[in-house]
Amino acid sequence: MVGVTTPNEAAAPDPAVPDPAPMTPQQYGVGARFTLSVYDSDYVAIILGALAAADPSGLTLETNDISTFVAGAEQRVVAYVLDVVAGAARSGAHLSASILLSRGCPGELQCALPPGTAALAADPVSLEATGVRARAHWSLYPLLDAAASPDSAPADHMAPIYAAIERAKAEGVYSGSDHYATRLDGDLAAVLQTAANAWIGVGRRVQHVVTHLTVSVNSPSPIRD
Amino acid sequence: MVGVTTPNEAAAPDPAVPDPAPMTPQQYGVGARFTLSVYDSDYVAIILGALAAADPSGLTLETNDISTFVAGAEQRVVAYVLDVVAGAARSGAHLSASILLSRGCPGELQCALPPGTAALAADPVSLEATGVRARAHWSLYPLLDAAASPDSAPADHMAPIYAAIERAKAEGVYSGSDHYATRLDGDLAAVLQTAANAWIGVGRRVQHVVTHLTVSVNSPSPIRD
Repeated sequence: MVGVTTPNEAAAPDPAVPDPAPMTPQQYGVGARFTLSVYDSDYVAIILGALAAADPSGLTLETNDISTFVAGAEQRVVAYVLDVVAGAARSGAHLSASILLSRGCPGELQCALPPGTAALAADPVSLEATGVRARAHWSLYPLLDAAASPDSAPADHMAPIYAAIERAKAEGVYSGSDHYATRLDGDLAAVLQTAANAWIGVGRRVQHVVTHLTVSVNSPSPIRD
Repeated sequence: MVGVTTPNEAAAPDPAVPDPAPMTPQQYGVGARFTLSVYDSDYVAIILGALAAADPSGLTLETNDISTFVAGAEQRVVAYVLDVVAGAARSGAHLSASILLSRGCPGELQCALPPGTAALAADPVSLEATGVRARAHWSLYPLLDAAASPDSAPADHMAPIYAAIERAKAEGVYSGSDHYATRLDGDLAAVLQTAANAWIGVGRRVQHVVTHLTVSVNSPSPIRD
């Protein structure tokens, strides 16, 4: 329709003036930071082996003395974390992973995006089952600003959290609520997928959304029902 | 001054009508949830030994297959976490601890306090040095509601985070900012004290505040400068 206008289209964008390019996931600050803890004296080989075997395509990766940073599109970020944790789990060692997923606040010392930037939608992630059973404590943090407009964010930060817990129940991985965290139990892929899709879902309306998971695999402790 | 009023004191509370009892830390949901991960095949003895040796006085404690829940007053909660992590660190094993501190949202499936409850102030914690060197990634989450009044909370959730980072610099434990987290480095007590006092400080104005730390001790990895 370039060059053709009708009265009804008078308000349409001028095709001669392109929209600003949409932000990339990296520009929007989509990524993860995770610490893989292996309860085994052979932990160095298990952790380095799992990191080396995971597919890094499309990602920015930095491992330091505390954790590994992963940036890229949601699907790739979460698939990478899944690869690393599942790979280490196949050693048979008991391990835990402390995982933070973040969207909407790129940068280091300060957010490079000012509060109130339009939320960037993303497709839900889809992960293949791994055969690794995982139990997790999960928390979701929609980081609202008190001055946000009613159109851009819900008034109550708990409302999207309650909605996410309801979705986890529908997806069959909810296994109870403890203080400060929701328990998830299922295939490691299903656990990560539920948490990631809640994070992405809230992120359609809220700019800065963080979620934390503590995942336990191969624990000798009895399952708490 | 019971029974004595002057015109200037006319607005003072009537001493015959007691204020409602202030909330206890437990009622306000003050507590921690933490996972201690020991990178050693002898992890069961190290973790159970550290839990058994820590002083539980004044606390509600529940350990399950994923983490340990601690509820009580701020000073006792943080001192307990310090005791457990420092005790395990003295085994010499490499370990990491994933620590969540929360105020203002008691309950399990749902917050038992409605959004907008008056924030409950608490004194800063004070912890004795342990001799255990710790490096940590730290994140602070003031969970505002978009409808909060300007008197009860800052408009921008990042402002108290930036202020807390400045205080960490003044306290000498700041060691850099990575994506999604601030690096702290120092005695384990100083690291926990800085994070806890930022959490308590923001909690004077914001009802629901959570902070997460991933602490690494006895790591064989070189320190990243």
